[in-house]
Amino acid sequence: MVVKSQLKFINSLQQKKYRTQHGLFVAEGVKLVSELLSSDFGVYGVYTTSPETLPSHEKIIQVSKVDLAKMSGLKTPNTVLGVFYIPEDSSTIPHNWSVALDDVRDPGNLGTIIRLCDWFNISQVVCSPNTVDCYNPKVLQASMGSIARVKIVYIDLEKFIADSKLSVYGAFMGGKPVYREKFPEKGILLMGNEGKGISQNLEALVHQKISIPQFGKKTTESLNVATATAILLNEIRRD
Amino acid sequence: MVVKSQLKFINSLQQKKYRTQHGLFVAEGVKLVSELLSSDFGVYGVYTTSPETLPSHEKIIQVSKVDLAKMSGLKTPNTVLGVFYIPEDSSTIPHNWSVALDDVRDPGNLGTIIRLCDWFNISQVVCSPNTVDCYNPKVLQASMGSIARVKIVYIDLEKFIADSKLSVYGAFMGGKPVYREKFPEKGILLMGNEGKGISQNLEALVHQKISIPQFGKKTTESLNVATATAILLNEIRRD
Repeated sequence: MVVKSQLKFINSLQQKKYRTQHGLFVAEGVKLVSELLSSDFGVYGVYTTSPETLPSHEKIIQVSKVDLAKMSGLKTPNTVLGVFYIPEDSSTIPHNWSVALDDVRDPGNLGTIIRLCDWFNISQVVCSPNTVDCYNPKVLQASMGSIARVKIVYIDLEKFIADSKLSVYGAFMGGKPVYREKFPEKGILLMGNEGKGISQNLEALVHQKISIPQFGKKTTESLNVATATAILLNEIRRD
Repeated sequence: MVVKSQLKFINSLQQKKYRTQHGLFVAEGVKLVSELLSSDFGVYGVYTTSPETLPSHEKIIQVSKVDLAKMSGLKTPNTVLGVFYIPEDSSTIPHNWSVALDDVRDPGNLGTIIRLCDWFNISQVVCSPNTVDCYNPKVLQASMGSIARVKIVYIDLEKFIADSKLSVYGAFMGGKPVYREKFPEKGILLMGNEGKGISQNLEALVHQKISIPQFGKKTTESLNVATATAILLNEIRRD
């Protein structure tokens, strides 16, 4: 049994304003909630019509379909909704590759990039403050549970790059063909905004501009930022 | 000036049923419509509030913002909407690589794959009949005009593969690591459905199962079909 004010409170977490205010986010679906339950994320509460589909946990509460629908942000609610604590921004990890995102705005793109980092063993995604919120429900959906394994930090990218002392590879049209690049053990792959690319102040901090060779007619303007990240991470790891 | 019945007719083309019935599809936005105007697609009509933004064409009609909104499928209509003829399914192209899609259902994935084919000079995308319609507005949006340059065919994939006599590479979990594969001049890259992968009857026709090595923890299930296609096409072309 969940009281009415609580249902409303959980539903409000669909909005970034309330997520930030309360330090909580909502995850929906058995797979995503199960992965978060077995991760380091703090659990506020898990609400489900079917507790038997989840690993046992003291914070699991059985609720009615009607109550679940009131908490959910989905048109067709799932059977499981979890509320988790947003981890505090902690120090960054310098001993591996990082993907740095300069104002990536599309939730699907960020979610896909998080999933790619998980696949390619990239420990962290470092986002400029204007990058879309990683606890946005559409990002969580596209990340497919990878958010439980990849660290995500929002930080001033200029400061992060300066502090890291790592080589910065930036994706640009007309950069050095990536096939000719020999990548080091650790570094930063910087990807730009969907429309504007990498901003000028960050461009100045890039050590090597790289690009994905184009084989078709030159009319194709660019690749989507998530597919470009896929290809570049594959190039970094296959070396 | 466009009569009311015509506005309603054009709006109906948001639905596949009416697109198929009339052999027409709708494209919105200056860039997409301009690219289609300079392609081989037949033009039924182009409706715009700002004719000066388009290359001149006898089928361009100036309309009011209100009329454009009535034709549009978008919440915030663009300044340009074009109606084009769906090309008749013609014979397939055997002298290059093809991407074959076995029931890919997500419009964003198909659009992204079309854009990738354009980038990597893959002449055609061959789709199983249950793959999402390439004239779906969301596919057109994600393809970013590449639909004007990549041939798309809906066909029985078993028959297509048998007739082509080309080597078929299928993306599977646990296939041969793609980095060890030396690809021929032409062939078929077969990608499966988002949830179910490649169906059994097509699996039997695959000559080489390939997969993208995973570097992270083995809990990440798979890559999204569009990002996997990005990496595999890059591998085919970089050889």
